[in-house]
Amino acid sequence: MPTAPASNPVLVEAMRGGTRESEHRGAIVVVDGSGKRVVALGDVERQVFPRSAVKLLQAIPLVESGAADRLELDDQELAIACASHNGEPEHVAVVERMLAKAGLDAGALECGTHWPRLGPVAHALAAEHREPSALHNNCSGKHAGFLCLACMLSGGGHVRQYAKGYVAPRHPVMRAVTEALQATTGHDLAKAPRGIDGCSIPTFAIPLDRLALAFAHVGAGSGLRPGHARAATRLRKAVAAHPFMAAGSDRFDTQVMTALGERVYCKVGAEGVFCAAFPERGVGVAIKIDDGNTARAVEVAMAATIEALVELDHDEAALLRSLSELTLRNWKGIEVGALRATGELREALVRVPS
Amino acid sequence: MPTAPASNPVLVEAMRGGTRESEHRGAIVVVDGSGKRVVALGDVERQVFPRSAVKLLQAIPLVESGAADRLELDDQELAIACASHNGEPEHVAVVERMLAKAGLDAGALECGTHWPRLGPVAHALAAEHREPSALHNNCSGKHAGFLCLACMLSGGGHVRQYAKGYVAPRHPVMRAVTEALQATTGHDLAKAPRGIDGCSIPTFAIPLDRLALAFAHVGAGSGLRPGHARAATRLRKAVAAHPFMAAGSDRFDTQVMTALGERVYCKVGAEGVFCAAFPERGVGVAIKIDDGNTARAVEVAMAATIEALVELDHDEAALLRSLSELTLRNWKGIEVGALRATGELREALVRVPS
Repeated sequence: MPTAPASNPVLVEAMRGGTRESEHRGAIVVVDGSGKRVVALGDVERQVFPRSAVKLLQAIPLVESGAADRLELDDQELAIACASHNGEPEHVAVVERMLAKAGLDAGALECGTHWPRLGPVAHALAAEHREPSALHNNCSGKHAGFLCLACMLSGGGHVRQYAKGYVAPRHPVMRAVTEALQATTGHDLAKAPRGIDGCSIPTFAIPLDRLALAFAHVGAGSGLRPGHARAATRLRKAVAAHPFMAAGSDRFDTQVMTALGERVYCKVGAEGVFCAAFPERGVGVAIKIDDGNTARAVEVAMAATIEALVELDHDEAALLRSLSELTLRNWKGIEVGALRATGELREALVRVPS
Repeated sequence: MPTAPASNPVLVEAMRGGTRESEHRGAIVVVDGSGKRVVALGDVERQVFPRSAVKLLQAIPLVESGAADRLELDDQELAIACASHNGEPEHVAVVERMLAKAGLDAGALECGTHWPRLGPVAHALAAEHREPSALHNNCSGKHAGFLCLACMLSGGGHVRQYAKGYVAPRHPVMRAVTEALQATTGHDLAKAPRGIDGCSIPTFAIPLDRLALAFAHVGAGSGLRPGHARAATRLRKAVAAHPFMAAGSDRFDTQVMTALGERVYCKVGAEGVFCAAFPERGVGVAIKIDDGNTARAVEVAMAATIEALVELDHDEAALLRSLSELTLRNWKGIEVGALRATGELREALVRVPS
């Protein structure tokens, strides 16, 4: 009988009363700019689809190509090009503005349509008897960025026609995006398992430690080719200046970057993926929760990671602790348990040299 | 260094393209009426909070006490007493009717309030500029059952006053409910880890195999004390007659029991728990997904279990396969992957003797 491969450790536990009710296994890796693993827990070489966690890397061609300058994109627009946003009115307005700069409108978006995931946002839309459009799709800012890139690449031709099918792997837009992802992660994507993302663009399975290294470089603004390094830094600073554009109300990324500014760049992805850059520490982080739980598992693990990697004042520490060790309340507001980073994860993280 | 305990096997996998993107570990046990384990995969003695999966057992006192007869509850009302419903208008109407029979209204419910989880139901409420009430809580039918029991136990006294605090462990209503749960599972709840459920009543951690045995008895209508057996059978048949009341539109339990009638009784619970009875086979099943994923993991595992345990005609087989091996599509409707029971789970299930 073959031995079962060792499973990843439990990074997050859901407690009810004093009993562990559920648990989330996963892998986490913290690497420095040389690729040295400062923390490695679980299978950190496993290839994972990074999904939306690499949106900043995918936005690099928008800046490097000169499109952002040519179309005079502002920092709000650059931030939303890296976002998984809530589809709140402010997000929709910025995406529309970007599209207009490229001479386009919502009809050019190929990301598909979904209801905003945040209850109050969806209910507000429903209360106005409206249906969501592609502008409300959490990826619409990224796609607006792709369309601005298409505008640049079309060289003054008919943009709408040129952009058609921009989500396909062989379209010049997607080739530029894939090339940036390959260059920044240093991973050969031609041989990587490929899937189709929720918003229809290709997604490539990349080893977790290569993702962490890419974000170490993003944080340092070095270790990438010069044009990529400059673009990544500009995008990172745009998000830091407008963290609401990165996600929105009641969202982890927005809360954390609003509180910590440029000390952390973090971006969640679907299926329990999270990448982050810590410029002060010169490290990058990548986490994947095996079961794909994003909202409750990988965010808790990332909060514990930030607690370990960033020097926090009293209020910041309280905020992060409220995200790494949440009190669970029921519909009557009664405390029923906790959701928290495990001792195993916290112990691994204290080993990071300061 | 201590050896890590063996982890549970992967029961469900989420594929993107040809690559496993995420996975759900868990334990499943199928037992016959004698308690013999026909299938056992993973740690089937682990104590789990069964949450809503045992609502039928918790509704037994409503019937056994004579309350259901005294208040002339119909099968729709008995079915919703065992339900985790969608809060659709039909559900709300039946719960209101039950409460009226006990001389009460929504104000007596102590389950708390939440928005209906199904998007269209919530959006319809929002479109009418309404807020949800306790009637929309997925547990409101169970609580209406508790209040009907309170009406009976109050012996003609002031029901509203008598019922106050019925969710507390020492209230006569909850003592009767806990006693039924203990008797039907044969597990000493006084010593079991206790937590507070989402709807504020106590929940007790019970070994998975004891839960499966209780549902083997529910399916057989024997192995329980006579009053419990009669009550369980009446409740099971009420749900089979009105499966929409058990859950609602687009819900697994309703779909399956609508198609299969009395051949399966199944009830999902929060945090990845599922219990089921197979009267024709004389077996009961309990499943717990380690990571607590209900909607996508434990339902897939239960669908594969039903495929293995029930003789299905062509249409039924197609329905169950659509639930045990789902095509995942993105917001544009493009096929991006699959969600499916693993080979390991299916292989364990084919070992069930027919």
